[in-house]
Amino acid sequence: LSTASLRLPITGAIYDQSPELALTIAADRTVRYSLVETGHAFEPDGPLSEKIRAAAGTVLVVVDDAIWRVQRNRINRYLAQVAGTYRVLVLPGGERNKTLPQALKIIAAMDECGVLRRSTPVIAIGGGVVCDIVGFAASIYRRGVPYVKVPTTLLAQVDVSVAIKTAVNLGGFRNRIGSFWPAELTIIDRSFLSSQSPAEISQGLGEIFKLALIKSECLFDRLEEIPTDWEPDWYVSGAAADLIRLAIEEMAEDLRSNLWEETLARGVDFGHTFSPLIEMRTAQLGHGHVVALDCLLSACIAVEYGLFEYEFLPRLVAVMRRCHLPTQHPAFADADLLWESLIETRKHRDGHQHLPLPSGIGKHTFVENLDRRGLVRAARLMGGLT
Amino acid sequence: LSTASLRLPITGAIYDQSPELALTIAADRTVRYSLVETGHAFEPDGPLSEKIRAAAGTVLVVVDDAIWRVQRNRINRYLAQVAGTYRVLVLPGGERNKTLPQALKIIAAMDECGVLRRSTPVIAIGGGVVCDIVGFAASIYRRGVPYVKVPTTLLAQVDVSVAIKTAVNLGGFRNRIGSFWPAELTIIDRSFLSSQSPAEISQGLGEIFKLALIKSECLFDRLEEIPTDWEPDWYVSGAAADLIRLAIEEMAEDLRSNLWEETLARGVDFGHTFSPLIEMRTAQLGHGHVVALDCLLSACIAVEYGLFEYEFLPRLVAVMRRCHLPTQHPAFADADLLWESLIETRKHRDGHQHLPLPSGIGKHTFVENLDRRGLVRAARLMGGLT
Repeated sequence: LSTASLRLPITGAIYDQSPELALTIAADRTVRYSLVETGHAFEPDGPLSEKIRAAAGTVLVVVDDAIWRVQRNRINRYLAQVAGTYRVLVLPGGERNKTLPQALKIIAAMDECGVLRRSTPVIAIGGGVVCDIVGFAASIYRRGVPYVKVPTTLLAQVDVSVAIKTAVNLGGFRNRIGSFWPAELTIIDRSFLSSQSPAEISQGLGEIFKLALIKSECLFDRLEEIPTDWEPDWYVSGAAADLIRLAIEEMAEDLRSNLWEETLARGVDFGHTFSPLIEMRTAQLGHGHVVALDCLLSACIAVEYGLFEYEFLPRLVAVMRRCHLPTQHPAFADADLLWESLIETRKHRDGHQHLPLPSGIGKHTFVENLDRRGLVRAARLMGGLT
Repeated sequence: LSTASLRLPITGAIYDQSPELALTIAADRTVRYSLVETGHAFEPDGPLSEKIRAAAGTVLVVVDDAIWRVQRNRINRYLAQVAGTYRVLVLPGGERNKTLPQALKIIAAMDECGVLRRSTPVIAIGGGVVCDIVGFAASIYRRGVPYVKVPTTLLAQVDVSVAIKTAVNLGGFRNRIGSFWPAELTIIDRSFLSSQSPAEISQGLGEIFKLALIKSECLFDRLEEIPTDWEPDWYVSGAAADLIRLAIEEMAEDLRSNLWEETLARGVDFGHTFSPLIEMRTAQLGHGHVVALDCLLSACIAVEYGLFEYEFLPRLVAVMRRCHLPTQHPAFADADLLWESLIETRKHRDGHQHLPLPSGIGKHTFVENLDRRGLVRAARLMGGLT
């Protein structure tokens, strides 16, 4: 054995006197993605068609069953027209279906389609749950393949449309696993909203309400202008178009400087402090509704802290009613559940509360020291609002 | 309903004349990670201890059962000394255990430990498989939490040590799902190699052989200097220390400019064209050995293309023998299996062969048009080498 003179015993110490290795590797990854509004996602010459035509091999199209039920023929006709070969995988929406097995179904379909690393974008057509699952599957398949989102609900159009996070629920926790992986293209087509009931539209208004309250008085004003007797087809109006666009733009402005959540004190987390656990435990509340309830509770906390004027609360309640959002729910009077939710969310904020609270209409601040008594007082204040 | 004058029918067209939304969002994410060599990973004042001491809450330590069997007491003593509270999860190594259920075990343990988003790094102590699974679990838990790698095999010390890819196998395919997620710190401690048999050390030499052949004549020269009768404790020699360091540095140099595999024609993919599928199908070949066999076949392909001198082949075979690497295997004479492997790998290279071939010792080039006949000829050439 040609040993070096510096050979030393195996355990416990330095092997030789040459400088030990110490490397630091640093690099930047650039992410770029687009969001385009169109009056007709399935335009044969539109941006979606361009992506599908350019795809190599069999295009996998994951469709929300809510859209598939009403637009099956239209979607098949469209795909037959623009895709060489394609395969449709229909998945159920709904938070309880945002699971790893659903993501694995997509991955198995990607294998069957022979999806390439770059040239076969997966197309997601559906609500937030379907977009989130497809995004997660795309992010881990071969360490990331491209995908395109076509959000079909108002909630998804103003929320997951802009965000780059993907997720599935696990072990009773919302979004416990996930990734940051933007769709290379997102198509916003409000005509899909024709398939949404007023209650479903209202879920989307819940996220808009959140954004307005912490970030944009202008958006809040527009919510106040929604007609009290709005009908399901309200969304086709110019006013609705402007509202939705403004919401998307405000969301984009807020997210773009902190895409990877490097800062964990995030304004867009408003409404997402108590709601994640409550949403998982309370089957009947949809995402936008539970977020809106969280916003109202948070506003009440802000009142307790003297950050938000009590006089504004009736104005919030009035806008919520206008948007068909609930303003009361037993889960938001359950002190144990609320406290547990806060403890759970704190882990996601690295041990800090980073509790976003409105400090006026369209402004926010953070508090770190809410205690259980303060929380109970705020919940009581909320319970007393009529 | 307060409609705008521009209200139009639901399907088929534009809603109003205001400019439609079109957003492009671009941002850079900076990644930074370190690799430190130490004579003693479990030094109470070393960099690993620093991470563990700074951790909030219960530290999750995932240990390869190969190391746990021989160092259980040492690891427990060490952790009791530096960690406030900790939990050890022992996982089996070996490619057949690089599975999603193993990753989910880690995620369940993270939940039980209450791992925070930033401040509770997960510690992985083990071979490449354990490091890859922990990395994958850490990358998807809460969209990414920090982890620290302590690779304990020669193969892992020169390969996954520097790389940022994480993976599990799925559906019979190697690394079918995964992510790019660097360990914030990687500790290289050669004393762990005392637990490795010569056959296991030889697996690591297989990856070093790969790197030498395409990238570093200097590294190749050092492989040729390994004593023919090297013994298991060869690794403690100064010569081995230099060899290992050089391999890590060369690997880092090659990876750093293409961390996210934005270019799919990668020199480090040498030896990874035919081997992934063969490794999954052939239980008895370890990763380093199957990679080395792939390198030899690729060198034979390069000879067929006139890119590599036939006279070099015996030199390769001699180095491989010196490193206890196999130079023949029935799988590398199986034309159907080889061709299937190439087709499968092509998908991972976005439909291109991007076949890295040596164009001399320490140099490489890529070819795109290997056909089945050329492959069969090269396999025959390889079979005739003695």
